[in-house]
Amino acid sequence: MYEDRIRHADLRGQIVSAEEAQGWIKNGMSVGVSGVTRSGDVKAVPKALVAAVKATGKQRKINLYTGASLGESDAILSGAGVVDRRLPYQADPVTRGLINNGEIRYIDQHSSNTAEVLRSGVLGHLDLAIVEAVAITENGGIIPTTSVGNSPIFVQEAGKVIVEINLAMPMELEGLHDIFIPGERPNRQPIPITRVADRIGVPYIPCDPDKILGVVLTDEADSPSDFTPVDADTLTMAGYILELLDHEVKHGRLPLSLGPLQSGAGQVANAVFSGLREGPFTGLTVYTEVAQDSVFELIDAGKVSYASASSLTLSESMRDYVLSHIKQYRNKFVLRPQEITNHPEVIRRLGVISINTALEVDVYGNVNCTHIGGTQMMNGIGGSGDFARNAALSIFVTKSVAKGGKISSIVPFVSHVDHIEHDVDIIVTEQGIADLRGLTPREKAREILAHVVHPEYREQLADYVNKATTTNKGQTPHLLSEALAWHIRYEDSGDMRLR
Amino acid sequence: MYEDRIRHADLRGQIVSAEEAQGWIKNGMSVGVSGVTRSGDVKAVPKALVAAVKATGKQRKINLYTGASLGESDAILSGAGVVDRRLPYQADPVTRGLINNGEIRYIDQHSSNTAEVLRSGVLGHLDLAIVEAVAITENGGIIPTTSVGNSPIFVQEAGKVIVEINLAMPMELEGLHDIFIPGERPNRQPIPITRVADRIGVPYIPCDPDKILGVVLTDEADSPSDFTPVDADTLTMAGYILELLDHEVKHGRLPLSLGPLQSGAGQVANAVFSGLREGPFTGLTVYTEVAQDSVFELIDAGKVSYASASSLTLSESMRDYVLSHIKQYRNKFVLRPQEITNHPEVIRRLGVISINTALEVDVYGNVNCTHIGGTQMMNGIGGSGDFARNAALSIFVTKSVAKGGKISSIVPFVSHVDHIEHDVDIIVTEQGIADLRGLTPREKAREILAHVVHPEYREQLADYVNKATTTNKGQTPHLLSEALAWHIRYEDSGDMRLR
Repeated sequence: MYEDRIRHADLRGQIVSAEEAQGWIKNGMSVGVSGVTRSGDVKAVPKALVAAVKATGKQRKINLYTGASLGESDAILSGAGVVDRRLPYQADPVTRGLINNGEIRYIDQHSSNTAEVLRSGVLGHLDLAIVEAVAITENGGIIPTTSVGNSPIFVQEAGKVIVEINLAMPMELEGLHDIFIPGERPNRQPIPITRVADRIGVPYIPCDPDKILGVVLTDEADSPSDFTPVDADTLTMAGYILELLDHEVKHGRLPLSLGPLQSGAGQVANAVFSGLREGPFTGLTVYTEVAQDSVFELIDAGKVSYASASSLTLSESMRDYVLSHIKQYRNKFVLRPQEITNHPEVIRRLGVISINTALEVDVYGNVNCTHIGGTQMMNGIGGSGDFARNAALSIFVTKSVAKGGKISSIVPFVSHVDHIEHDVDIIVTEQGIADLRGLTPREKAREILAHVVHPEYREQLADYVNKATTTNKGQTPHLLSEALAWHIRYEDSGDMRLR
Repeated sequence: MYEDRIRHADLRGQIVSAEEAQGWIKNGMSVGVSGVTRSGDVKAVPKALVAAVKATGKQRKINLYTGASLGESDAILSGAGVVDRRLPYQADPVTRGLINNGEIRYIDQHSSNTAEVLRSGVLGHLDLAIVEAVAITENGGIIPTTSVGNSPIFVQEAGKVIVEINLAMPMELEGLHDIFIPGERPNRQPIPITRVADRIGVPYIPCDPDKILGVVLTDEADSPSDFTPVDADTLTMAGYILELLDHEVKHGRLPLSLGPLQSGAGQVANAVFSGLREGPFTGLTVYTEVAQDSVFELIDAGKVSYASASSLTLSESMRDYVLSHIKQYRNKFVLRPQEITNHPEVIRRLGVISINTALEVDVYGNVNCTHIGGTQMMNGIGGSGDFARNAALSIFVTKSVAKGGKISSIVPFVSHVDHIEHDVDIIVTEQGIADLRGLTPREKAREILAHVVHPEYREQLADYVNKATTTNKGQTPHLLSEALAWHIRYEDSGDMRLR
């Protein structure tokens, strides 16, 4: 049985139930599990662990490392109090609540950095890796499913490995992955990707079969992604970005194939990508962390010739379509480790055009994309820093207001900084587009005031800038006594607007 | 005459005076000039330009691009009102004053990024490059002097070039430089540096001789650097860093050769480097932007086997010694373009250990290294962002207080963010060392409170953290109404301390 799924003969004798496998997870262990933004996550063992904890009443606390958010397991593990430390990216609502309460110790970091941190030894030993797989090769190699994430480094660094073979995942996923792990320093070599389509590694995660404790069989689809519907503002913002790209091509600053495109998860990026279907651009490529529906729509439309990502984060219908037609994407799509999709070396070399979402932006172009009111984490920083700093063109999108106008997304001073002004080229809201390239901070403020602030806040923001500029001489004029007044007014009265 | 200095025969007929050459600089031009932190800067033409402007009373405004601060020329050009836009790094006091007044439009950016911005075309055409040289080769190649900086990209992008041959610079500088310019996208290849000592380019800046308008002869030394004397606090901080490095070696996280070392300009880094002379470490290497005196002391002591930098920023006596003994450093030192010394690709591959200076640090580990009170620029961000984000170990140093205790360098909320918490591993003050690796923001606050805050501010800062943590639930608890209160109190009363 399962000769095709477990090609290493000895390992076929190591099939265990999830209930048995969860017993290998001991209190205090550090465990790395597969999964990026609801894709390719381990499904059975986490649930079995929680069931056992509940049944026995004997709590176990683990440090849980992933690629990014898991599917159902994140909420189940977090809710059961099993998670002590958690890294890296996080956006699951239950987990987020416990992180903000201080019950889960959350270490945020750049997506490209998790593998380096694990290699450095600063987090201590990684006890266990649990990875969802399509199959195990003759040599113990693990063929991942719909994401790669940090699984390669987990398998490399962990003392022991549990593999979940997911029978619901088509065997044809084999060959889609390209696993390359940068070597140890001081002998590390360049990452030899010079084209989005370059394959530089092997189609499985190398693993010493002696490290594999057991194999668990599962048969469960990935949790689909909820896409918020596209609204008029989203389409307007997408339109501005398409105009900008067109303008760059006309001025000879970009070719018709643009540069490899990256987008953070979210509807604006999805809408921009959809808009590219109708535009003049051809021979497009995608070099991103998370591939959403629109990537496959563009491949199907013949607009995108090749896409590279670390996960398939798809709606239910697109997921089913892609998985049942995966062969036709074999020469147009590759899944890579997160360290490679997000590596500064590759992003800068390729000249990626990045589109990420901001929570708030200040008048000098600094961006907050993680913390509400400076305190409450909404989501981790993810790959946005890897891309924004190294992209050839770094675009941030946000609606100009939130909560029916009570919050302005453009503020005098962001309550938390994720991206400094030097890493932000373009800001887009439904009001317009601010092109900050080659501008001083004072010029940036004028550009932002003129183009992206909601009219209800324009005068209020202009007043701040004028007062700051006349009161304080400096490269970046601020009035610290009023810099955070908008946020404080919102805390006090529920509205940033002056009455 | 000058056959050795001007080996391209035709160009020997193009020797002109600085007075004649300055006439080629027209109002409104964008001009890229050589010079990094007072080294290898053009010396005659800028002064002649200012003299002509003063003599004729006819102002000319230019956009001035450099590697970093120039020597005397910065103050002379700025003071004469010649400079419109200025980039990238800046620390000259006269220029700084005019930038903060808004009279010079200053665009700060990461050191590694200037070449990319020029390539992108977003700043418009570069009209002229003016480069100090030891000599011009048979093919028009320009052999730089004591810095490389952005000169290669200036020469590549500029319509015309003026060369200042500095006869005071020894011919033996030839062979010290390694000029490599990343190619245009989409065909850009990896930067093939895998060891600090790797030479990957040519020893001159390639230049079409037809672009050379003229050659000016000069005979003037670089402006020496002022080193503030080492004090007891500086030595204490250096001691902490050496202990940390020792500790990392003992725990197997670093080899005895550590990793390639980088330091920002400044006395603590210089003192740390000096301390390495006595330590157990061997076979050290340096991969930095600016090489200070201590680099050569360590080479002489046999501790450093190879050093790579973009400029020699030396005291007067060390400068004279190094230049008169330059041959003995030929196999131990290389000068590279700033784009290469600071490239994320190379920094991350090599695993650089970076030491940079902070102005202020907040309780969650965010760092301000450029702006006083959030408004006044002290210096540009320089290469600190390139190194801090990509280093294997990112260290920031600052004295815990300034102005005789009236300012705490550790504050609740930095008034400006240059480096986000994810890019800051270690903070060192004369009080101790805070190791932030693998910690959550709340844990970072406890570590910072325990180890690096001045005793006079410890209770005050603990009160803020306690109040914020109990009032606001969140990953990064802040009280926005009090977050900037220390800065505001200093503005109002001249002292951050509570009375």
